Amino acid sequence: MQTELSRKLGIEHAVFGFTPFPAVAAAISRAGGCGVLGAVRYTAPDDLKRDLDWLDAHAGGRPYGLDVVMPAKKVEGVTEADVEAMIPEEHRRFVRDTLAAHGVPELAEGEASGWRITGWMEQVARTQLDVAFDYPIRLLANALGSPPADVVERAHDRDILVAALAGSARHARKHQEAGIDIVVAQGYEAGGHTGEIATMVLTPEIVEAVDPLPVLAAGGIGSGPQVAAALTLGAQGVWLGSIWLTTTEADLHSPALTRKLLAAGSGDTVRSRALTGKPARQLRTEWTDAWDGPAGPGTLPMPLQGLLVAEAVSRIQKYEVEPLLGTPVGQIVGRMTAERGVQAVFDDLTRGFEKAVDRVNRIAGRSGRP
Amino acid sequence: MQTELSRKLGIEHAVFGFTPFPAVAAAISRAGGCGVLGAVRYTAPDDLKRDLDWLDAHAGGRPYGLDVVMPAKKVEGVTEADVEAMIPEEHRRFVRDTLAAHGVPELAEGEASGWRITGWMEQVARTQLDVAFDYPIRLLANALGSPPADVVERAHDRDILVAALAGSARHARKHQEAGIDIVVAQGYEAGGHTGEIATMVLTPEIVEAVDPLPVLAAGGIGSGPQVAAALTLGAQGVWLGSIWLTTTEADLHSPALTRKLLAAGSGDTVRSRALTGKPARQLRTEWTDAWDGPAGPGTLPMPLQGLLVAEAVSRIQKYEVEPLLGTPVGQIVGRMTAERGVQAVFDDLTRGFEKAVDRVNRIAGRSGRP
Repeated sequence: MQTELSRKLGIEHAVFGFTPFPAVAAAISRAGGCGVLGAVRYTAPDDLKRDLDWLDAHAGGRPYGLDVVMPAKKVEGVTEADVEAMIPEEHRRFVRDTLAAHGVPELAEGEASGWRITGWMEQVARTQLDVAFDYPIRLLANALGSPPADVVERAHDRDILVAALAGSARHARKHQEAGIDIVVAQGYEAGGHTGEIATMVLTPEIVEAVDPLPVLAAGGIGSGPQVAAALTLGAQGVWLGSIWLTTTEADLHSPALTRKLLAAGSGDTVRSRALTGKPARQLRTEWTDAWDGPAGPGTLPMPLQGLLVAEAVSRIQKYEVEPLLGTPVGQIVGRMTAERGVQAVFDDLTRGFEKAVDRVNRIAGRSGRP
Repeated sequence: MQTELSRKLGIEHAVFGFTPFPAVAAAISRAGGCGVLGAVRYTAPDDLKRDLDWLDAHAGGRPYGLDVVMPAKKVEGVTEADVEAMIPEEHRRFVRDTLAAHGVPELAEGEASGWRITGWMEQVARTQLDVAFDYPIRLLANALGSPPADVVERAHDRDILVAALAGSARHARKHQEAGIDIVVAQGYEAGGHTGEIATMVLTPEIVEAVDPLPVLAAGGIGSGPQVAAALTLGAQGVWLGSIWLTTTEADLHSPALTRKLLAAGSGDTVRSRALTGKPARQLRTEWTDAWDGPAGPGTLPMPLQGLLVAEAVSRIQKYEVEPLLGTPVGQIVGRMTAERGVQAVFDDLTRGFEKAVDRVNRIAGRSGRP
């Protein structure tokens, strides 16, 4: 499964795996793809340094990357306390009431909330980059908007390819103007922040819009035939995130969440603003239903919503309150029915890809394998 | 582009084209696909007879089909007047006010509303079938739910294949239990009634769910690479509806609507209940915005909503009131940028399919064409 882009990066398969877990990223790179570590949860530079040390030591000398979140809109001099002060009391009460209705315990004194807004702020992303640039990362992805010009320049000075996610051809062209190297076309069916245009339509549209930039297809891809379909649509690779959540190398810290993921069907996700304030696909839960239902106060814009719910999400996860327990995940969750190792996922993807190519060759009236 | 199903039907390309226009259906069949005429607008049996006569004479002896709407829930002895009486005055007023706000003229005395609810009622669909069974149709598709057992039996007695649309694996299995022959997997991005699961995820899911029944992929397909991707996902053919709306053979009776379709991008559709009461993808207009916005009274369930808006839709179309003017269409509307003949669309699909197969073969490290 080789494209111009995979050859440029020196990877065996044009499969890019986004994951918050260093063990998963390392396993993806060892299996011949490109593991991309999500940095958003690293608010302390030393934590990121520790995990990048580990990843670098366990990637088998293969290429890997880092995914940061730099919001497109730069806000100067705003602290977390400033943002906290902008959250209406009505919304805080709704969070308290919803948690109380489900009997969610408080965190212990001094127990940190796992997910903080700070990871979404540019100053933190820049600290992450200062750490990351000391490692031989080959790919730097930005999950929200185009990265700033100086970041693109620093990356290019180090021979690092810069990728950015886009949900429309217009966004993709803005990224191209910002000098990035790869566009990730994030379809409606993808986990996390998504637009409304499905992968089948979005991928060729972005491929044509940013030609000759390479495009990775994201959203709805979790099997070999789906990989083959994405590449058929003109992508130079696929960007997979959800599929790794139920690998044995992943560490969700919640057996109940893993069970929910394994049991969920393709119709059990929802595109909701409940998590961050922007539409993000995630497991549908009583938590998302509460926010999206008529009794909810409406979600707040990013970054207020994320800050508002951070502690609640930590409590729900820590105490595994099943009706409320969710995670960003795409519609391919319906295909995640058993825990498997990353290598087994890769074997399935590559075997399924070959069979799908055989199949389309038969339909085209061509001989199968040479 | 040959699959087991296309060989069984004796068509050259595994492309099924749904259209309300006999001239388009005939051209699709002549081009080597299977034209499928939508019957919903034929409330008078003689009109359907006239158009089937024409279609049969112009399909070049090639296979063609008919698409009827038989709602899954059978309602005995309910007349159009009974349904009319169930519509709240608040909703009638909202229709009147919205039309008045845009200065939409009244229809002339005695001028019939083009689209009537009756086409959606089983007794009308059965009259349509009585007409259709006198013609050598090869495919009978049902757009809502599984067709009744006796209809499946009558079709099978005449060697007609029965197809039904499904938006989830569960629906598809229900169709299979009803004895149908083909499932049309209708993805989120499709025009008309759709579910929430995108084609990339839905197609393989339904293929696996109803194996060994053949599946047609619908939604997001308007180019050769998209056809190739759908077949790669396991479909035995593709079901295209939107792409024909801007062909020269189509007769939208509205140059303004054709202009809107040619100008629309992939992000200019919306999945709204405004037209029928069930979510259907269509051009986003000030009409859909009014219904879906906070000032709207909310849509009514099928069939009330369709009956409520039938006359309004006729007036908007007749007088080409541009801000309100819309039609069911899928996200591939962004790809419909010029009027072309049906044969030109087919040439583009087949050439693009071959190129896409070349491309995926190169990625798989196989030689291209034999």
